[in-house]
Amino acid sequence: MTDLDELIRLFSKLPGLGPRSARRAVLHLIRRKDALMAPLGAAIARAMDTIRTCSVCGNLDTHNPCAVCSDARRDRSVICVVEELADLWAIERCNLYKGQYHVLGGVLSALDDRGPSQLNIEPLIERAAKDEVREIILATNATIEGQTTAHYLATRLEGCNVSISRLAQGIPMGGELDYLDDGTLGAALKARLPA
Amino acid sequence: MTDLDELIRLFSKLPGLGPRSARRAVLHLIRRKDALMAPLGAAIARAMDTIRTCSVCGNLDTHNPCAVCSDARRDRSVICVVEELADLWAIERCNLYKGQYHVLGGVLSALDDRGPSQLNIEPLIERAAKDEVREIILATNATIEGQTTAHYLATRLEGCNVSISRLAQGIPMGGELDYLDDGTLGAALKARLPA
Repeated sequence: MTDLDELIRLFSKLPGLGPRSARRAVLHLIRRKDALMAPLGAAIARAMDTIRTCSVCGNLDTHNPCAVCSDARRDRSVICVVEELADLWAIERCNLYKGQYHVLGGVLSALDDRGPSQLNIEPLIERAAKDEVREIILATNATIEGQTTAHYLATRLEGCNVSISRLAQGIPMGGELDYLDDGTLGAALKARLPA
Repeated sequence: MTDLDELIRLFSKLPGLGPRSARRAVLHLIRRKDALMAPLGAAIARAMDTIRTCSVCGNLDTHNPCAVCSDARRDRSVICVVEELADLWAIERCNLYKGQYHVLGGVLSALDDRGPSQLNIEPLIERAAKDEVREIILATNATIEGQTTAHYLATRLEGCNVSISRLAQGIPMGGELDYLDDGTLGAALKARLPA
């Protein structure tokens, strides 16, 4: 196998890329050797060296604790619990939340044989027991497994002196009632608020 | 900008990847640091070093002349002219052609202001003039620009003592007449063969 084939094989393992799009990506890289291929190689090498998991919250960053955990301007009384790093990034992008995070690294799943000990849960319980923490937001996905995990966490956190909240469920922005699934519409109806 | 953001920015420049899928790809890489990220970084670095353009045909390989040009078992009397490297790979995959190649590096295009001097054409004329070459297959795409380029090449090659051929046009394998565009059906009808 040549170096080129090996490069294509590795690219085709990325999510969203198959053999065909991996070939296109590699051709694109080779045509832009200096403008793209060299910086990409260097960025991967640098990230391999510098990026580590934050020992407090499970975020990835070049520092430990991460930029969020060590930012003095952020509210230390609220912890937002998310399944994956991508969820943390999504919440950061909406630019509204200024508290701390806790990345679970997955959800409880009987099918995948994933129990509480495989998730980053014990450190969360320890963090929640601290005096400065007053609220825990359970921001797991609105899936069966996400809800199960949130329910489990709520039970585990009962002993701690914190208020526990969940993300609101309802009609998405711009959503039209006629096109919504029954579950969403039902949840929005049940959770209706005074106008 | 952190190392992570930089990595995502570079990935999002690959064809077929946007900001969202680049984030997914980078997360996937980081989760598989040893199994995927390290080999990918190494493969890019190695390819940067070793891969060069073949001075004979324009193919990319770790050797110059490339594996195709230097393979003594391949027929040196036929040259297949393709637009891009990806086309060469496509023909190699069908495992039927055992001659030489010539990669033009694009097509003539008035819109993109690309003339004959920007393509790898002069070396082709020189190759075609050699005694050993007896056939040139013009395997450009069946697009307006591909056909224009093939027509131009046919004119330029008139002086050389070679037979010039084109890929057959017609109904694709498994194609149903009812679903074919008029152009393809018309071409297949015009190029009909004795049964």
